[in-house]
Amino acid sequence: MEKILLGHGSGGRMMHELVSGRFAPAFEIKGVADAAVLELAVDGAPPRIALSTDSYVVSPLFFPGGNIGDLAVNGTVNDLAMVGARPLYLTAGFIIEEGFSMAELDLIIKSMAGAARAAGVRIVAGDTKVVDRGKGDGVFINTAGVGVVPPGVDMSTGRISPGDRIIVSGSIGRHGVAVMGERNGLSFEPPVLSDSAPLNTITRTILERPEAVKVMRDPTRGGLATTLKEFAVESGLCMLIEEESVPVEPGVAGACDLLGLDPLYVANEGTLLVVVASDVSDYLVEKMREHPAAAGATVIGKVEKGPEGSVVLSTSIGGSRLVDYLQGDQLPRIC
Amino acid sequence: MEKILLGHGSGGRMMHELVSGRFAPAFEIKGVADAAVLELAVDGAPPRIALSTDSYVVSPLFFPGGNIGDLAVNGTVNDLAMVGARPLYLTAGFIIEEGFSMAELDLIIKSMAGAARAAGVRIVAGDTKVVDRGKGDGVFINTAGVGVVPPGVDMSTGRISPGDRIIVSGSIGRHGVAVMGERNGLSFEPPVLSDSAPLNTITRTILERPEAVKVMRDPTRGGLATTLKEFAVESGLCMLIEEESVPVEPGVAGACDLLGLDPLYVANEGTLLVVVASDVSDYLVEKMREHPAAAGATVIGKVEKGPEGSVVLSTSIGGSRLVDYLQGDQLPRIC
Repeated sequence: MEKILLGHGSGGRMMHELVSGRFAPAFEIKGVADAAVLELAVDGAPPRIALSTDSYVVSPLFFPGGNIGDLAVNGTVNDLAMVGARPLYLTAGFIIEEGFSMAELDLIIKSMAGAARAAGVRIVAGDTKVVDRGKGDGVFINTAGVGVVPPGVDMSTGRISPGDRIIVSGSIGRHGVAVMGERNGLSFEPPVLSDSAPLNTITRTILERPEAVKVMRDPTRGGLATTLKEFAVESGLCMLIEEESVPVEPGVAGACDLLGLDPLYVANEGTLLVVVASDVSDYLVEKMREHPAAAGATVIGKVEKGPEGSVVLSTSIGGSRLVDYLQGDQLPRIC
Repeated sequence: MEKILLGHGSGGRMMHELVSGRFAPAFEIKGVADAAVLELAVDGAPPRIALSTDSYVVSPLFFPGGNIGDLAVNGTVNDLAMVGARPLYLTAGFIIEEGFSMAELDLIIKSMAGAARAAGVRIVAGDTKVVDRGKGDGVFINTAGVGVVPPGVDMSTGRISPGDRIIVSGSIGRHGVAVMGERNGLSFEPPVLSDSAPLNTITRTILERPEAVKVMRDPTRGGLATTLKEFAVESGLCMLIEEESVPVEPGVAGACDLLGLDPLYVANEGTLLVVVASDVSDYLVEKMREHPAAAGATVIGKVEKGPEGSVVLSTSIGGSRLVDYLQGDQLPRIC
C-alpha cells in the first residue's frame, strides 16, 4: 500500500508528483504555484474582502456524515459567510504524518473538492508538509478563505437591540455527537450524522434583508451556549432563550444523556444563529426553510435589556437558568 | 510554569483568554473574529489579489537567526512577493501540542509580530487548535496571505527568453545550514545565521522595471538547484550557471562539507532568484544591493536555447554538470 514518506514534504520530485498528480487535478488547478493571482469581481463599489483561516485536527478523521476534508472546506466557507461575505477562494495547507495512507488521503482530497464545488468556491493555493511518525496524527488541514463583502452588509453584535429575535437554522449538536460517537465506537438509534455543510447560500438568502440582520454566527467549538454568551457580552444585552424551542433531534438527545454532554455546548458545523429585527423574523424563517440545510429553522428566543451580558434559559414550567461560556475541554479535537 | 492545555483549543473561556490576552495584542487586532473584513486599496484599475499559504513545521523551533514565528511570516510574505504582489494581510493558524511552554509561545508570537511590522503586513485573522501530547511537535503554524498585484505585473516562466540573465540576491544555503546545525548540536566558524527575511521591498525595487522582469522565485525547500530546474522545465530552455559565481559564504561551505550537503539543494528563506532581460541586469543588481538583505546580489548565469529543460553548471576549468530536482528528503522539516 502506497504511503506518505518524508520526501513528500521536501520540495523535490516526490512532492511535485504528489501535488501535480493528486491535489491539482482534484481541485482543478492548472498551474501549481505558491501564490495565486486572482481577479475580484467588483460592481463599481470599493471592494471589501473577507479573509479567514481555520486549522482542522478532528479525531477521528472520518465520522458519520463527513470527514476532515469537507469539514475543512465548510468550516472556512462558513466563517466567511457569517460576516456577510460571499466566499470565493480557499487555500489548503496539509500537515501529514509519515506513513499516512495514500488511499485515505485520496478520500479526503475528493471530499474537499466536492465540498468546494457544493459551496461554489475554488481552492487556489496550497502547501504540503510531512512530519515524522509520532509527531503528528494522520493529517491536519488548514484552510484560509477570501470572500467579497457586498455593499450595505455590516454584521456586528453592536447592532443587536432589545426586541430582536434569535433564529437557529436547525437541530443542534449533531457534529459533536457524530464525532464523539465514532471516537468511542458507539452507534446511536436513530443514527446521528454530522451537520457539516456550507451555509453561504442560506446567508445569501438571509442577507436579502441586510438592514434587518444584526449578526450571524455558526456555533462550532463551544456550541450554541458559547455563541449566545458572546452575543450577550458583546452587545451588553440579555439573550432570553425558550429551552423547549431549541431543536435537538432524538438521536442527539439520547447520545448526550449517554455521554454526559449538554447539547447546548456541543459543536455544530453546518448550523447558524442569526439575530434579526422582530418584524422580519417569521418571513426569514420561512425563506431559510427553503434550503435543505435549514429546513428546521426556528425562532428560539429574543433579546431583552437585562440582565446585561447574560444568557437566560427559560423552561415551560416557569424555571430559568443562566448559561455561561464553555469551560475547559468538554470535547477536544472536534474540528 | 504556565503550559498549553487541551482546553486552550476548545473554543471556550480558556481559548478566549489565550487569543484576547496573547495573540490579539501582539498582532494589534482590535476585534477578534473568525474572518476579517478588509478594504483593498485600488487605483482605479480592476483589483487583482494574490493569495498564498504555507504551513511551518520546522524542527527545532528556534535556530540561529530566527524561529518558526518570523519564518511563518517571511515565508508567506515572500510567496506573495514572488508573483509580483504587494503583501497586505496574513492569517495565522496554530496547532499546538498539549504541554507546550507558554513562554516559548510568547517568544514565537513576538517574533511573528516583529516580522509582520518589518514586512509592512498585518495579521488579521487566526485560529488555535491544541492536540494531545505526542500527537504534534511543539507548535505548527500555518499562514495564508493576501496581496494586491499592480497593473502590468505578470511573472511567468513562459516569458523567459534565451539571453536573459539570472540573478541571485545573496549567499545561498544559510537557512538550511542554520537549522541543521541547531538540530545536530553543531556550531560553525564563522557562525551561520538563517537568511529568514521579507523580500517584498526588494521585489518592489525590481518591479520598477516590470517589462524586463520575467520571473522571480525564492528557492526554499529544494534549494537553488530545484528552482533553476523548475525554470528550465517550465520554459523549455536551458539555465547555464557559472559555478564560481554562485555566492556561498565560508561558514555554509564548511558546514556543507561537514554534513555532506550540496549548498545548491539547501533551503533559503530570504533569498530570491530573478530572471531579467540582459540589458537591465547590471542596473538591477546595483539597485538590489541598496537593500541590506540583497547586498550580495549578483548575476550567476544566463538563459540559453538548449539543452531544453536543463540546468547546466559550468566550472572555470571548462567542466560542466547537469543539475536535477532535489531527490527525496535531504533535509526534512526545514521550514
